[in-house]
Amino acid sequence: MKYLLLGASALILTACNSASISPSKRSDPSSLAAPSHAYSQADYDYLAISDPEKMSAASKRALARNYHKNEEWFGEFRHETLFGDFAFDEDVSRRDPSKVLKINGVFYTWYTRTTGETKGFGTGDPDAKVFPWDHAEIWYATSKDGYHWQEKGRAVGPGQAGQFDDRSVFTPEILAHKGTYYLVYQAIKAPYLNRTKNTVAMAYSSSPEGPWRKLDAPILTASDTGEWAGTQDNHFLVKSQGDFDSHKVHDPTLLFYRNKFYLYYKGERMGERKTAGGREIRWGVAIADNPQGPYIKSDFNPITHSGHELCVWQYQDGIAIVSSHDGPEKQTIQFAPDGINFEIMAYLPTVPSAMGLVESLDKNAHPTAGLEWGLYHEYVIPAGKTWMSGGNQIKRFSFQSQYYKSSRNSDELTHNESN
Amino acid sequence: MKYLLLGASALILTACNSASISPSKRSDPSSLAAPSHAYSQADYDYLAISDPEKMSAASKRALARNYHKNEEWFGEFRHETLFGDFAFDEDVSRRDPSKVLKINGVFYTWYTRTTGETKGFGTGDPDAKVFPWDHAEIWYATSKDGYHWQEKGRAVGPGQAGQFDDRSVFTPEILAHKGTYYLVYQAIKAPYLNRTKNTVAMAYSSSPEGPWRKLDAPILTASDTGEWAGTQDNHFLVKSQGDFDSHKVHDPTLLFYRNKFYLYYKGERMGERKTAGGREIRWGVAIADNPQGPYIKSDFNPITHSGHELCVWQYQDGIAIVSSHDGPEKQTIQFAPDGINFEIMAYLPTVPSAMGLVESLDKNAHPTAGLEWGLYHEYVIPAGKTWMSGGNQIKRFSFQSQYYKSSRNSDELTHNESN
Repeated sequence: MKYLLLGASALILTACNSASISPSKRSDPSSLAAPSHAYSQADYDYLAISDPEKMSAASKRALARNYHKNEEWFGEFRHETLFGDFAFDEDVSRRDPSKVLKINGVFYTWYTRTTGETKGFGTGDPDAKVFPWDHAEIWYATSKDGYHWQEKGRAVGPGQAGQFDDRSVFTPEILAHKGTYYLVYQAIKAPYLNRTKNTVAMAYSSSPEGPWRKLDAPILTASDTGEWAGTQDNHFLVKSQGDFDSHKVHDPTLLFYRNKFYLYYKGERMGERKTAGGREIRWGVAIADNPQGPYIKSDFNPITHSGHELCVWQYQDGIAIVSSHDGPEKQTIQFAPDGINFEIMAYLPTVPSAMGLVESLDKNAHPTAGLEWGLYHEYVIPAGKTWMSGGNQIKRFSFQSQYYKSSRNSDELTHNESN
Repeated sequence: MKYLLLGASALILTACNSASISPSKRSDPSSLAAPSHAYSQADYDYLAISDPEKMSAASKRALARNYHKNEEWFGEFRHETLFGDFAFDEDVSRRDPSKVLKINGVFYTWYTRTTGETKGFGTGDPDAKVFPWDHAEIWYATSKDGYHWQEKGRAVGPGQAGQFDDRSVFTPEILAHKGTYYLVYQAIKAPYLNRTKNTVAMAYSSSPEGPWRKLDAPILTASDTGEWAGTQDNHFLVKSQGDFDSHKVHDPTLLFYRNKFYLYYKGERMGERKTAGGREIRWGVAIADNPQGPYIKSDFNPITHSGHELCVWQYQDGIAIVSSHDGPEKQTIQFAPDGINFEIMAYLPTVPSAMGLVESLDKNAHPTAGLEWGLYHEYVIPAGKTWMSGGNQIKRFSFQSQYYKSSRNSDELTHNESN
């Protein structure tokens, strides 16, 4: 395999798309033909590039984007049904499970719970349930084996009429920090319309069983940018879109990282477009010195241009994420050494919705150890109906990696009928 | 929104990953902070980048990879069941439908047809059906409305014992050119082992009904590179992997393009790895002056580093593809102005398997007009079994685009009960 060294004047510097190529390395843009001294024969062989002097655009892109690296980040999700109160329930919808905490040998999770059929918008009844998460409460459940779950009761309910959370509280996440448990969750103040902006609220307790004390005000709000067009309740009609989070701040996820409180969240935008990657969905982060805030949105937002429900965990000194359904980087695992600047590590076939990761896993053992098993939800859609009028069921996922098998006691990992 | 013009010495040239940025345009690699004069306020607004001086790695990547462009290439696939001989059939497996030709007002398609259960490898019986496409024949069917299909009979069967196609013929594609119909398809010479390399064969006829005349020799073979390790029939054990197509040459797809015959195909590699994008699957092309060959593999192969069953059509002066299940660029639509150098245009949620496109659609009307409807296959997997022992059923897909609706007569497009 021969390849040429270019003269210094023609050297092209690009570190596009990879944290692992230092600025001093050089590689070709798709449109130029010359190969680079930065790649080894092993790199070419991995990618089956037989002649570096005659590379297709796809081959140049494969090198530039490190398709020959990071195989240890790849794996595939599997799904399992749960038992007890998480078995399919025709009358109760349970969705958006939080991370799973293991407290005194027992697994805990928090989730959105509703009853009744979703009617949707435009019924003429302002109290009609407009989404599967409308008129919701946050409940919690426990399990000894991660398969049989017992619903324990309500953790947080809506506020009094007139308060910022009087319509619905839902999509919780949990952080245990120095003996205090913090729930962060979405809140809606009535009326619940297409154009309604939500907020993020917090409640805390000294015990996972509660009682939970709510903060008086939201800890995060949608951006006050963008301008609606007209008065019709249509969130696609705008004079200007505003920021990535001008409409919604969803899926709040709280981590203690770098000695601060990182509140990751999904933004939805007024006048949302369909792009080359589908829906425009982006994530942001807001950072505080204290768990109760104030949370300051990062100047570097948005920190992703893809994803949907958040899936975020600390891997060694950085933050790893799984990006799901929407955007050009859908169904990828990404990593940011600093929690802000994410690069794509792996490309997955499918990703479960609304994953709740298990906090007690040995997350630093391997890039994907934090995904070994956890909870997620599925839509249960009756025949002839759409996702809106179905309910949700919490289920369990596992992540199969060729490169990592947990060395822990297996009774937590495989369903044992005698449990 | 302020952004700086950099001094000439700091200008960084990259045309990574986009055919639409000329070499004179410049944009930042992820690791540098300075913005570029190549982007407009509209570009930043599209991506909700509020401060170009403080962009996350994801935002820089979004600009560099044109996430703010190509929205007209996006859409979503829908699925429909077919009727007549393509309804579910417990005894017959039909898979890998070819492109659909419309001849004298009637739709024609060719496909792999088998009966009997797949036994898999290691049974000790050299004649046992090892894959759903083993002991296969190529049959064809017709339809007036694209929904009700009538199976017409066999087009091509296996050869005589000892010939290069004596075990199985399958996965056909069709090209009509100057009054002659050309079938290209995969062929296997017994025995059919894990390590067996297949070939690509051709048969031609002056009528879509046949009779079909086979060429005496394959038109394409797997690369004679790579080296097996040991004698165990295991295709993952290699001393060296060889080229991207050292094991298999699959899914041959023949187009008349730039006044030549472009034979696109999928390569599978000896000692196939699991990479950061899953299975390593790549496409190549071989080009001939005459439809019967000789076909010369392009020096620029591989031309993709992702995909599975081919989906290829001409859009204006270039070639468009849909990349499916495997690799870092799974589930994307890509375009090459020259049929060789593909760039990613859109990122799809799901992609049907083994699509057979409709050749008579007005493909040049819009980037995705060629996908408006077509055929594909699903696996029908009995409870408790794996994909290997299931059968296949041919079904119909449609592609929903926000940007394109066909102006043609609708009776072809929607199932009309009176047809």
